[in-house]
This record gives sequence, C-alpha cells and structure tokens, in this order.
Amino acid sequence: MVNVGIIGCGYWGPKHARNFHGLAGANLTAAWDLDEERPRQARTQYPYVATTCDFRDLLRDGVDAGGVATPVGTHYQLAREALLNGKHVLVEKPMTSSSREAMELIELAENRNLVLMVGHTYEYHPAVDYLRQLVKSGELGEIYAIDAARLNLGLFQPDINVLWDLAPHDICITLSLLDETPIAVSARGAGHIDHDICDVAHLELVFSNGTMAHIHASWLDPRKVRLITIVGSKKMAVYDDVSEAEKVRIYDKGLAIPADNDSFAPWPPHYRYGDVTIPFISNTEPLKLECSHFLHCITEGGRPRSDGWAGLRVVSILEAANKSLSNGGRREQMPATKASAEAGAATIR
Amino acid sequence: MVNVGIIGCGYWGPKHARNFHGLAGANLTAAWDLDEERPRQARTQYPYVATTCDFRDLLRDGVDAGGVATPVGTHYQLAREALLNGKHVLVEKPMTSSSREAMELIELAENRNLVLMVGHTYEYHPAVDYLRQLVKSGELGEIYAIDAARLNLGLFQPDINVLWDLAPHDICITLSLLDETPIAVSARGAGHIDHDICDVAHLELVFSNGTMAHIHASWLDPRKVRLITIVGSKKMAVYDDVSEAEKVRIYDKGLAIPADNDSFAPWPPHYRYGDVTIPFISNTEPLKLECSHFLHCITEGGRPRSDGWAGLRVVSILEAANKSLSNGGRREQMPATKASAEAGAATIR
Amino acid sequence: MVNVGIIGCGYWGPKHARNFHGLAGANLTAAWDLDEERPRQARTQYPYVATTCDFRDLLRDGVDAGGVATPVGTHYQLAREALLNGKHVLVEKPMTSSSREAMELIELAENRNLVLMVGHTYEYHPAVDYLRQLVKSGELGEIYAIDAARLNLGLFQPDINVLWDLAPHDICITLSLLDETPIAVSARGAGHIDHDICDVAHLELVFSNGTMAHIHASWLDPRKVRLITIVGSKKMAVYDDVSEAEKVRIYDKGLAIPADNDSFAPWPPHYRYGDVTIPFISNTEPLKLECSHFLHCITEGGRPRSDGWAGLRVVSILEAANKSLSNGGRREQMPATKASAEAGAATIR
Amino acid sequence: MVNVGIIGCGYWGPKHARNFHGLAGANLTAAWDLDEERPRQARTQYPYVATTCDFRDLLRDGVDAGGVATPVGTHYQLAREALLNGKHVLVEKPMTSSSREAMELIELAENRNLVLMVGHTYEYHPAVDYLRQLVKSGELGEIYAIDAARLNLGLFQPDINVLWDLAPHDICITLSLLDETPIAVSARGAGHIDHDICDVAHLELVFSNGTMAHIHASWLDPRKVRLITIVGSKKMAVYDDVSEAEKVRIYDKGLAIPADNDSFAPWPPHYRYGDVTIPFISNTEPLKLECSHFLHCITEGGRPRSDGWAGLRVVSILEAANKSLSNGGRREQMPATKASAEAGAATIR
Repeated sequence: MVNVGIIGCGYWGPKHARNFHGLAGANLTAAWDLDEERPRQARTQYPYVATTCDFRDLLRDGVDAGGVATPVGTHYQLAREALLNGKHVLVEKPMTSSSREAMELIELAENRNLVLMVGHTYEYHPAVDYLRQLVKSGELGEIYAIDAARLNLGLFQPDINVLWDLAPHDICITLSLLDETPIAVSARGAGHIDHDICDVAHLELVFSNGTMAHIHASWLDPRKVRLITIVGSKKMAVYDDVSEAEKVRIYDKGLAIPADNDSFAPWPPHYRYGDVTIPFISNTEPLKLECSHFLHCITEGGRPRSDGWAGLRVVSILEAANKSLSNGGRREQMPATKASAEAGAATIR
Repeated sequence: MVNVGIIGCGYWGPKHARNFHGLAGANLTAAWDLDEERPRQARTQYPYVATTCDFRDLLRDGVDAGGVATPVGTHYQLAREALLNGKHVLVEKPMTSSSREAMELIELAENRNLVLMVGHTYEYHPAVDYLRQLVKSGELGEIYAIDAARLNLGLFQPDINVLWDLAPHDICITLSLLDETPIAVSARGAGHIDHDICDVAHLELVFSNGTMAHIHASWLDPRKVRLITIVGSKKMAVYDDVSEAEKVRIYDKGLAIPADNDSFAPWPPHYRYGDVTIPFISNTEPLKLECSHFLHCITEGGRPRSDGWAGLRVVSILEAANKSLSNGGRREQMPATKASAEAGAATIR
Repeated sequence: MVNVGIIGCGYWGPKHARNFHGLAGANLTAAWDLDEERPRQARTQYPYVATTCDFRDLLRDGVDAGGVATPVGTHYQLAREALLNGKHVLVEKPMTSSSREAMELIELAENRNLVLMVGHTYEYHPAVDYLRQLVKSGELGEIYAIDAARLNLGLFQPDINVLWDLAPHDICITLSLLDETPIAVSARGAGHIDHDICDVAHLELVFSNGTMAHIHASWLDPRKVRLITIVGSKKMAVYDDVSEAEKVRIYDKGLAIPADNDSFAPWPPHYRYGDVTIPFISNTEPLKLECSHFLHCITEGGRPRSDGWAGLRVVSILEAANKSLSNGGRREQMPATKASAEAGAATIR
Repeated sequence: MVNVGIIGCGYWGPKHARNFHGLAGANLTAAWDLDEERPRQARTQYPYVATTCDFRDLLRDGVDAGGVATPVGTHYQLAREALLNGKHVLVEKPMTSSSREAMELIELAENRNLVLMVGHTYEYHPAVDYLRQLVKSGELGEIYAIDAARLNLGLFQPDINVLWDLAPHDICITLSLLDETPIAVSARGAGHIDHDICDVAHLELVFSNGTMAHIHASWLDPRKVRLITIVGSKKMAVYDDVSEAEKVRIYDKGLAIPADNDSFAPWPPHYRYGDVTIPFISNTEPLKLECSHFLHCITEGGRPRSDGWAGLRVVSILEAANKSLSNGGRREQMPATKASAEAGAATIR
C-alpha cells in the first residue's frame, strides 16, 4: 500500500486525488497547496485526508509518494524537495522548465533509487497503445509523416506558451509511435492576445530516417480539435481524441510508384482504395492507468514507461522549439548527447 | 459575343468548355490539344466545335479568346503565343512556372490592351465572396491568423510539387481575404513517394501587420480536407469547402485581455462564448462566375479581379516557397518591387 | 435547509446524492437500498450519511424529503410510504406503473400539502428551455410536427419495455414544447431479444390541432441517437442531445403555398432557404436544476413544473401505448377526464 | 445496338438521356415531351436526336425501347402505348398509380415477349448490392428490424403524396434485402402544407417471420437524410446514402440473452462491442448500371431484376399504405394472391 500525497490542488491535482483514492494499491494521505482554500475542498470529498499549506508537512506526513500538479515553473523545486526527502514522484508534464533541471531530477532519483515518473497521460491512453502496436506490427508500413493538431479556445496560462501547454501531448505520442527522438526541431508562431506569449504555433520534428512530424497547437481556434494523422506507406490512420466512440480509424488506402524495372514509365503512381476500420478501444481513463503504473513501479520496482528520460526528451524539444521561435523558425539541431546519456543510463539500471 | 477556343482538353479544359458553352456571351468555337483523341471527345459533346492538334489552327480560327488549361510548364509559351496573336487569355493557375514569365505575359497583355486573367477559381467562389465581405466589414475584428489545410490522397503530378498544385487555392483566398501580400514566406516538406517531388508541405506567409497564415498541403492524407480557419479578434470563421450545404460557420466567440488601466492584474483573459451562424450561401458554380467575369472584362473593358498581377503574386510566393524548401525551411523575404510595380501598373491603366 | 434521503442507490440514486450533496439548500442525510452493499458505497463518498436497508429507518431519520430512484414497479409503494410519513417526494420517471397509482399519489400529496415532483429531467434541460421559449415566441410559426428518436444498444430492463424506459424523455419534451396533451396515441413495436419485452417501438401522439409527434425508441441500434426535430411553418429546429457543444440548430427555411387569391395556380410552393443558427446554451447539469427546483418548491412553496399531474400525463400515454401495442397499433383515444381533473386541481390549489 | 427513345424530358428524363448516350449498346434516337421547349434542350446537347411533341412520332421513329420518365399518373398510358407498339419499356418508379394498371402492363409485356423494367434505381446501387450480399451471407444473423428515413425540404408534387414520391426507394431496398414481401402494412401521416397531400408519413411493413420495417418519409425536414439501419442478431449495419465516401458501416456489436439451460437467471443480456467496418464501395452511378441492365435484358434476353412484378409489389404496398392512411393507421393485410400470381408467372417464363 503506497501512501500518496497530492502536491497542488488546482485543476489537475483533484484528478490525481480521485484516481489514487479509487485505486486499491494507494492511500490518499495528504494534500498540499499554497492556497489554503483548495485543500479544504479536497477534505470535503476525502475527509480522511490531511491538508496543509506548509510543504514540510507533506514531506513529513507518512507519505511515500507525491503527485506534483502545480504550474510548470514550480515543478523542479517541488519535485526536488520531495525526492530529497525520499519520496517517489509523479510530476506533471512538461516535467520542468529546462532540460538542465530535468537532468538534475533524473540524477537525484537514480542516486536514491526512487521512482521518478512524468505525467505523460497519453502514453497510457488505450488508443495510443493501440496505435503503437499498429505501427510496431508493420501494418501501416513505413511511417512517412505524422500530423497533429490540438486546438481550442484555450486556457491561457501566464507562465508558458501554447507549445509548452499543448504540444507535450503530441510530442509524447509521436515519439512513442516512432520510438525515436528527432534530430532537429523548428517552430513558428505568434502571440496575438499577449504579444509575449505565443498562442498559435507550428512545431516541426525532423527524424533521422526522413519521417516528419508536424504539430499545430493553438489557444485561438473556434473548434475543439485533437487530431493526429499517421501516414504510412501501406495504410494510414487517424486518431481523433475528441470523438467519444470512434477515436481511431485505419484507412486501407495509399499509393506507390510501381517498382517495375522493366517499365520505362513508372508514372503515374498506383492508387489503392480499401476499407476503413474503426477498432473497438477500451474507454478506461488513461490517468487511472497512469496512476496505477506509478504504484506498480513503486511496489514492484521497474522503470516507468514515461520516466525522467522521457520527460527530458519532451523538455529538450520544447527548449529547442522556443529557440527556433525566437530565431524566425530556424531549424535547431537536437543535442546528440541526450540520446547517448540515455543509452548510458539504460545500461546502468 | 466572344469566340472562345479551348487550349488543352485534359482534366480541366472540358470544364472550361462546358461553362463557355453554357454562357450567353460566348461561342465555343475551337478546341486544341496535342493528343488528338481528346478534342475528338469535345466534338462528340459540342459537334459544332472545330478541333485540332495544330496550335496555329486555333490562333487563326476566328477565335477572340483562349482558355489555357494545360500542364503548368506550358502555360507561358501557349499564353504568349495567344497574346502575340491578339487573343484575350484566361490561363489556369498557377499562371506560369516563374515570376519572370508571369511578368512577361503581363507586359505583353498590357502593351496590346488584351485581357489577361488567371483562373483563380476560388476568387469567384460565393463562399469566399461572403468571407471577404465579412472580413472587410470588420465583423471578425482584426485578423490574427489564417490556417488552411488542403489534403487528400492526391492526384500526383510529375512536373510540380504539392504546393504548386494545391496551395494556389489557399494563397489566393488568403491574399483576397487580407487584401495584402506577404513580406516573407517559409516552407517545409518532403517527398515520400518520389523523393524529388515534395508531396506533403507546410507553407507559412508572414504579413507586415503580424498576421500569420499557415497552409498545409498534402497528396498523402486519408481524408479529403479543404478547411480554412480565420481567427479574428472579435469573431472566428471556418470555411469547410468539403461540406455541401454548410460551407461557412461564424463563431461569435473569442477572448481578450481586459484593457483595464486601473487593474494591476489584467489576467486571466476574458472568454466570450456565443452563437454559431451558418449563413446561406449560393451554390452557383465558381467556374461559371469566373468564365462570365472573363467575358465581361473582354466586352465591357475592365481589369479582371484575378488579373496577371494576382497571378504573379501567387507565382512569386510559390517561387519563394521552393527556395525555402531547399533551404531547410528558412524564411525568404518577398521582393518589395512587385508591390510597387503593381502600384505603378495600377496608375498606368 | 432540507434534509434529503436517497431512496434507491443503484444507477440513478448516486446522481441524486451527488447533486443534493452539492446544493446549498440541502443536507444529504440518509440513504436506503434493499441491497446493503450499495448504501455502503454512498457512505464512502459521503461519510456523514446514515445508511440502511430498513425503509422504516429512512422514514424516521430526521428526513424531510426523499428522492425515489428504484425500479419503476416499486415507485408507487415507496413514494406512498414516504408521503404517508409526511415526506416531500421526488420520484423518478415514469412516475408509476399505472395512472391509477399516479392519481392516488397526487391525491395523497395534495391532501397533506406535500411536494410531489416527478424526475422529468429534460424539463429542466437548458436546451429544452431554449426550445420552449422559441416555440412560445412564435419564431418557428405553427408547429406542424415533432419527430424524436432515442436509440442505442440499450440497457435492457426486465420489468418494462423500451417505451417505458426511453419515451418518457421525449413525451415530456413534446408536451412541454406544445403545452398540450394528445387526444390519441398509437404504438407499434416488437420484442426481438425477449419476445415478451418490446425493444424497438414507434409511438405516435395525435394532438387536437393536427400536430403530430412521432417517437422512435430502440434498445437495438448501433448508433447512440437522441434527436428531436421540430417542424414549424416558419422555421425548423433540431435538438441533438448527443452533441456536446451544438445541441440546438435553428433552420431559417421552409415552404408555403402562396396565399395569392388572384392566382389560379398556387402551385408550386415557395421555398425559402436561409441561415442556420446554433445558439449558445448553458451546460449546467439538468439534474442539478431539477434538484434545486425541488428544494425551492419545498422551502418557498409552489407547484413543481413537473408535478404529479405531469407524471400522470406521461403514465397515461404509456398505458395507452401499451394498449395500442397489444392491439396491432390501433389508435387509442386518451381519456378526456384527466385534463378536466387537472384543471379542477389547478383551481383547488 | 438498341435504339432508345426518351419519353418525358423533365427532371429525370435527361438523366436517362445522358446514360443511354454514354452506353456502348444504345443509340439515343428520339425524345418526346408534351412541352416543346424541353426536347429542344435535349437536341442542344445531343444534336442527332429527333425531338417531338407528338407521341406517335416516337412510336414510329425506328425506336426499339423507351424510357418513361413522366408524372406517375401518365406512366400506365404511355407505357401501354409503347408496349402495344412493340417497344421494350423502362418505366420510372412508382410503376403505375394502381396495382390493376401494373398487372395489365405485366400481362401486355409477357404476352408480347417485351422487356418491362421498372426504374428501381437503388436495386442497382453498389451499396445496396453490398448490403444484399451481407444479409444473404448470414453475417448480420437473423434480421430483426429495418429502419429507414428519407427526409428533406422536399420537391412537392401535386399528384402524389410523400410516400409515393420517396418510399419506393426504401420499399425496394427493404424487399431486396429481406427477399420477401410484407404480409401487412400500416401508415400514418398528415398534410401540413396542402391538407389533401400527405407530406410527412410513417410506413410500417410487417413480415411473416416477425421482421419489422419502418420507413419515415418527409418533405418537411430541415436536414437531408437518407439513412437505413439494419438490425441483425449478430451484427448491425447502417447505410447513409448522403455520405459521399462512407455509405455503409457494419457494426460488430449486439446483444443476446444467454441460451444457458442450466441457469435460472438468464438476465441480463450479454453485450458485445466490436469494431466498425466501412467497406470500400464502388461509386459507379446506379442509373448507369440500371440502363445497362435494361439493354442487356433486351439484347441477351432475361428478366430484369426490377421487373414488372417488382414494380407491382411496390405499387401494392403504396396502395395499402394509402388505405391505411385514410383509416387512421389501421394495419392492412396484403393480398396473398400477388405472391402466387408471381410464382405462377415465374414458372411460365
């Protein structure tokens, strides 16, 4: 049984609370927030929970693990304190404000043998799971391109731009599907409501094998869109997270230039039109699966699927994106060191 | 009554023929194609039409005006011949393969007082007309951003990339809505089926007032998408050209940071949610309106809405896009000269 | 402050509990169910609630009012007991298994001056409210027809057929929009899974002014459909309850035979095509508004919008529908007595 | 080569003309209409066609076969004349105004060995073909119910009600899918625009094995709907004819009461949720397939899929529907004689 403390009781913390409350392997023990009104609400729902505005109380309180769901700028400090006090930590995405901070948390956790997990919820989404298997099985063929859009009249945040807010989801999904990290990144965008905060942006990820991913993130769109298209050489798939019952569609269509050596004129390409399949996908709440995985890693040992290195990869891409944004969309090379660091880390464990 | 000759009887030429055949002010007189099978089909449908494979026949044949609907690479030469022989010319989009060629055609037409019109069909689309009025009226407020997607399992063409094939539509619509030309252009993309021909691309247009337009063009998408979102400071609009009956939606929603001088904390922005309106829009065929406008310019005089300069603007943007594509997505400044040239030209006429 | 007891803790009771728990004017005091496991779950969430399997406990327990959310067959007995013990009662729909039972509860409540309300949730739905105003304002003109469909792979119930399960929603909405009761009713259907329980049915309501309503209810449909079309002489409206953000659409279209006295040939009708409007509609939970209205009627006095008479009207229609079902779809006249009884009742209060 | 004459050049005749013009096995020879303006338009498009307002011209004119596309009330007389003059006849749906007339045409054609075909276009629709195979293969299991809706702001017709206008499509499809004729029919509806002409109607078909079909036809609906749901014991299918690319969906879902003899409580039913499949379906124009089938029956011999008997079945159902409409929706038994007549006819040929 893992005693879990909620760190931050704003928008996302209560979701952590609800899930840990519902899971057999966890005791929801304590809840902290700077604002003293918020944990009080938690106590109304879970009267046995100890609430506090003093972070030291949480670190004392017989707590084994903490879920950090605070503004991004505070992730590093709060997660660091928790790790230093021997707590396992689930930190929301994006993991930190910089890759330097992320690296520090990773080292801290590894040195103390603590679980450090990042809340990349979509990693645990049954639809993403399905798509990952689909790509891995080769059914889509070679992946040519991934195109993602996450748009809405958005919840503006004063401390991060729209890429840091929305793109982590699509970056996670993309890296997870391709099982690769990009070699270069570029981003373009602008701040229309507050000129200092980019509210519409386009992010491009370039992979070594030529695959390109494009992520469109916007806080200024009249429609709620959460759509990912995966273009493969054999089949194509579309993942529409807004749809309640039909999230994934697999299109058995495509085209190819005939590889006919005898032919002098391989043009035009051959088009193939086939069926569309909408697979049945479980509607288990992804956050429940994520919280459950966190508990499993604590009690059984094992590295979380979305560990600190995964968190670092996302933060590094966002850092490069910010750099590109301020350089007029220039392509920024991704540091190769990280991949090797990770490879090294992998052998260490 | 204008005697019209069809130049090119492939995919688009027969649409010209059908429309000129149906318009009161035109005589469909002649049809030319290199392939002798194609004009023969035209004669089955319009038996009074003289068909030929010899371009000189068409130039002789009592023809006043010609509609050029051939592969892009041949537009310049055929339009030039026609103009030199005193014919008014409607040339399909994109107007030419280079801005130099476009400029030459413009000068030729102006020197000879002939109508030179480019087949920017969407300029004549009732939905685009509606949106242009909407933007002009100020109902949407300041235009922050335009986002366009034109996707499909596409008709690959051996001589041009996907931007030259699909983006002219969205470039025209964007320039028409904003009534401005971009100051810089960037493009990213890749060729997946034929490595030499970009089949998925993203084009960015930067305007002097900060408005950004983004155009996504793809020949490799399982869904047929033709969607333009216009984000204004007051309202937002979505134009879905695939929808048969509900092409335009106006969303009375948005957000703004309160301009309250007394307040120290203008955060968070104010959200406004209102009704959605789907205006009734005529379903007159845009190409019919375009052909009719061409005839009107010939008989009544007057400059076409999509004249050579409009064609040149699109070709210049595509040229810059190609340059950016081969420079890893670098932002290319647009030549300022064209705007002044045009201003000059406007005073001349 | 009203002390509320939950009567039945199956599927719907916990929703009552959550709403009464959240409303300022109520104390969630007690919870009863035959199955002793279920109230225990309520206590986990609301630890201050007294739980019991003995209905007499609930009637004793300092409870002012009870929410009955049990199988239909038990509504009458439980509501009757509660009323006899001086409790105000909110009973779920359909109110009872027969109009005789419904009438008895109405009399009981009126004699003891207790609030008897039926859980016609849609009566309190903001979208239905909007439509009711729209009809009342005359904007749709004369209402020609209402067509409703409520379909799904349904939650089969062993004690009632699909009409008793699903049609109460659409009957309530229809009566509420038209502000009238039907003069005749017919129904057709069949039981395919269990031959004794009709699982697909069509219900027709005939109104004295010629308006016709048709309700299609099915537990055997692959799609989840909750759709109501209101055809007016001036405009038409569609209410799609499955849509999250766009529940109501008003179509400014219609047709009419010109009332031109001079014309010998009033044919063909005149068609009018105009805009579609999707009004912004609040997403307040209807059950919250319903529970709040119940508390208001208790504390301030006043007759609930969905009082016992409204419940009786629905039960009478369902009774007539069952009769028609077993008579091969014959039209059954509705008893006129009810309307007069109600008119009488209205003057009494 | 079959010489074909067009009988009626209003809305549907030109579609006949276009298709016969395009088919290799036909010569479009002549065109007749009472209104002399209409055939003239045909001659503009097909200058070799002889046009006339005198029906005797058409019967003389070297014509082998005629396509009758006139108002329903004239079908019988025109088809009869054509048959008496030795012409093969394709007559639009519904075949005639009465079953007596239909029977007479059938006899006339059989006696003279002429092809008599009814324009049940949907019989030739690739989507209906697909569904027919699907039902026949048993993949859907036992067919429980068919539900059809054909709605729009309709093209009112002065001489027939909405059932005679729209329901023939859905009746044909239903009979074709079930390969059976109903034993009883009922209909309810009303005329709102013109009180003498029913413009909204519900038609019920009862089959001997318990399958029920329900057809909703309306000229007064704001949405364009052409939807058929087929509920099977194993799977379910939805055919949406308004969708351009995704007309058919097969839902691998359903429910059943476990047939477990040992169990005292077979309740609740077992639910099964699986994939949805959208099969690729050819978009060949159904009317082209129909016209081609007509030519084939003439030149190769053979009975059309939609022969006179099929036309008679539809007309008989519509007759019974009209009777039911004027009897307040009473169920009308279908005459058993027709089936035997047909069986007899089948042996004759």
